[in-house]
Amino acid sequence: MLSFKMLRTLTIKTNKKQEIIDITEKVKSIVSESRIKEGFCIIFTPHSTAGIIINENYDKNLCYDILDKLEEFIPVYENYRHNKIDNNAHAHIKASLIGPTKTAIIKNGQLLLGTWQGIALAEFDGPRVRNIFIKIIKEKIE
Amino acid sequence: MLSFKMLRTLTIKTNKKQEIIDITEKVKSIVSESRIKEGFCIIFTPHSTAGIIINENYDKNLCYDILDKLEEFIPVYENYRHNKIDNNAHAHIKASLIGPTKTAIIKNGQLLLGTWQGIALAEFDGPRVRNIFIKIIKEKIE
Amino acid sequence: MLSFKMLRTLTIKTNKKQEIIDITEKVKSIVSESRIKEGFCIIFTPHSTAGIIINENYDKNLCYDILDKLEEFIPVYENYRHNKIDNNAHAHIKASLIGPTKTAIIKNGQLLLGTWQGIALAEFDGPRVRNIFIKIIKEKIE
Repeated sequence: MLSFKMLRTLTIKTNKKQEIIDITEKVKSIVSESRIKEGFCIIFTPHSTAGIIINENYDKNLCYDILDKLEEFIPVYENYRHNKIDNNAHAHIKASLIGPTKTAIIKNGQLLLGTWQGIALAEFDGPRVRNIFIKIIKEKIE
Repeated sequence: MLSFKMLRTLTIKTNKKQEIIDITEKVKSIVSESRIKEGFCIIFTPHSTAGIIINENYDKNLCYDILDKLEEFIPVYENYRHNKIDNNAHAHIKASLIGPTKTAIIKNGQLLLGTWQGIALAEFDGPRVRNIFIKIIKEKIE
Repeated sequence: MLSFKMLRTLTIKTNKKQEIIDITEKVKSIVSESRIKEGFCIIFTPHSTAGIIINENYDKNLCYDILDKLEEFIPVYENYRHNKIDNNAHAHIKASLIGPTKTAIIKNGQLLLGTWQGIALAEFDGPRVRNIFIKIIKEKIE
């Protein structure tokens, strides 16, 4: 197994200003292609106005609930200091709370997620093209 | 050291609707049993209405403060869209903010936590039986 | 590569009660000194009133925006239960939301951060002397 196989980049085109986009199947495919049986996986988005959420991905309405609640307390339009430079302070604050990185366990060649868990990109300042790095680490078995 | 020794499941029965339950000693025992000296530990709960917190675990009142503050802004009863399916949108939102996974360092065979740091399961939609996966990774020493 | 080279402690003296302090260059130096080409890095602060943020570090005003927004909802002075013991419940709650640990990928000997991403210590109960553990893990290449 060569190293370059273990780091992949997902590229996602977001469509709205704020959006939660499920990437579970894409991450599962990368884990599957790696053929790694036991280990773990670092999901990292290199953006400061987006984040990675692991939560339910079945009911799309829940995604709107999460975005609405964040917007209620951290609205797009407010007198932020950073907005003198760029009109997206709200997105940076939301991304700081959600965080750009999550780690998931791999067992028997599969992501060890719960039945109702999915992995999603949280876009807070779209639409944009976003990258997500998927780093897969094989556990050493002695 | 075989792989199956490195992934353990903690099963916790929660007692309340919302509750922060200390699991530090249980995680420490698993680290100790693994006999791994240097490495790290992924703590992951496969639920979308619970999370993992690393913070003070000495004063139980602090746990109530954290839950009260989350409840103040993300109350159980509100007009969430997801509630047409399931009455727990608040719990999903709280869990998205806290996150289902944290990573801790192992040094000299012990979890490298601060004096006032503990690991806890945050239950937002109990009472339920919850699982927490503890994946211990041994550092390769060359 | 010996194990002791792979765990370093950054010690940061904070100057204010609440402050976001960029540590990106310090973490990059540790990664560079490790000479590890492919792997990842766990950034962990062993305090329960501080956290680790990965977000923009170019515009200092954004740091004030993040702190102001957290303070708006989790003010220093409020009737917290924990404050009977210690006057810093607000700091524990903020730290629980931000989290004490983040994981970053190392590629070609460098931290794989986005152009606008930096790593910062979030101090919520300073001024204090704070530690940040930097654990660097080398990927095994087969």
